[in-house]
Amino acid sequence: MQMDYPRLRKKRVCSVAVEEFVQRIKDFHGAPAPGVVLGGYMVDLAYRHLPPEGSLFDALSETFSCLPDAIQLLTPCSIGNGWLKILDLGKFALSLYNKNNGNGVRVFVDPEKLASFLEIKTWFFKLKPKKEQDLDVLLEEIHTARSQVCGITPVKLRPEIFTSRRRAGFSICPICRESHPAPDGNCCRACSGETPYL
Amino acid sequence: MQMDYPRLRKKRVCSVAVEEFVQRIKDFHGAPAPGVVLGGYMVDLAYRHLPPEGSLFDALSETFSCLPDAIQLLTPCSIGNGWLKILDLGKFALSLYNKNNGNGVRVFVDPEKLASFLEIKTWFFKLKPKKEQDLDVLLEEIHTARSQVCGITPVKLRPEIFTSRRRAGFSICPICRESHPAPDGNCCRACSGETPYL
Repeated sequence: MQMDYPRLRKKRVCSVAVEEFVQRIKDFHGAPAPGVVLGGYMVDLAYRHLPPEGSLFDALSETFSCLPDAIQLLTPCSIGNGWLKILDLGKFALSLYNKNNGNGVRVFVDPEKLASFLEIKTWFFKLKPKKEQDLDVLLEEIHTARSQVCGITPVKLRPEIFTSRRRAGFSICPICRESHPAPDGNCCRACSGETPYL
Repeated sequence: MQMDYPRLRKKRVCSVAVEEFVQRIKDFHGAPAPGVVLGGYMVDLAYRHLPPEGSLFDALSETFSCLPDAIQLLTPCSIGNGWLKILDLGKFALSLYNKNNGNGVRVFVDPEKLASFLEIKTWFFKLKPKKEQDLDVLLEEIHTARSQVCGITPVKLRPEIFTSRRRAGFSICPICRESHPAPDGNCCRACSGETPYL
């Protein structure tokens, strides 16, 4: 079923019309995943609270799940351009921060605030099997709640997170004959035992 | 300068017109980065050599640099939907593989094949400062070479890479009061010492 959300027609997330954002999610992520939709409202909240000092910011996602795609769809940050970094902390939270000094804001889902949004709470804590939850009702509640289920706090990133690491030259691995970063040693990390292949 | 590549007009990468792919790169990645363009031809090569047994595949990038964006722009795999995984091996290589059995193909840049493509070689090994290299000449050579600088080999992924890990419930961290995956222990990984914030 294609839901129509008349109340959303004029609403925006990070200057993108909500309907356009949902279409982007379908095209990029494959489905209108609740986590990416909620993630969009989290990015929007963070954006509106960025320190005014400058416009160049990087992004950090504290989970690999859904949230990175919301960031990639609504900001200039992507995993491949290096402006989005991901830490596998399993927390549904993100930060936007000044890439020069690490000052920024962190937005997270606040479990206490989920008490007023039972569909979101049920989905977020996986209290029901996925097939028993009505996706349209859930999405409607996310579009209603927007960032009301979130907390926001100023943060300062550790320098080792936001300082870019430039590659210091390349070597040819004597085992696989491929190029690898010279600082990794005599042979590449895959041939040193980290290969993902059998 | 906006280069025009008349020879490319009818060429495609993964069924996408090359000019359309380059536009997608500019929109998503922020610039027509050589690594994403070359990555597109690598994805294209891998696609054409996928085992015929099924159409559902996942992707693995062996670097965080550029290549993940080529994968995200040309396949259904994204970092947020979990179908793209990234290992920080520092190798410009990717695999597409059957998500059920791990059988697939790996495409990599073959240093020996760069001998015939000096602009690509200079860029790939950073033999010149970026500002001294002519981006348009480099991109022209990448569009000419396509996947001629690559090798391809069948691979089988280790099960721990392609077996999806489902979250086994959530706990509330007693320190930050946020939700975290229950298997991580009594408190979340950030409060256990992995926080990226000062």
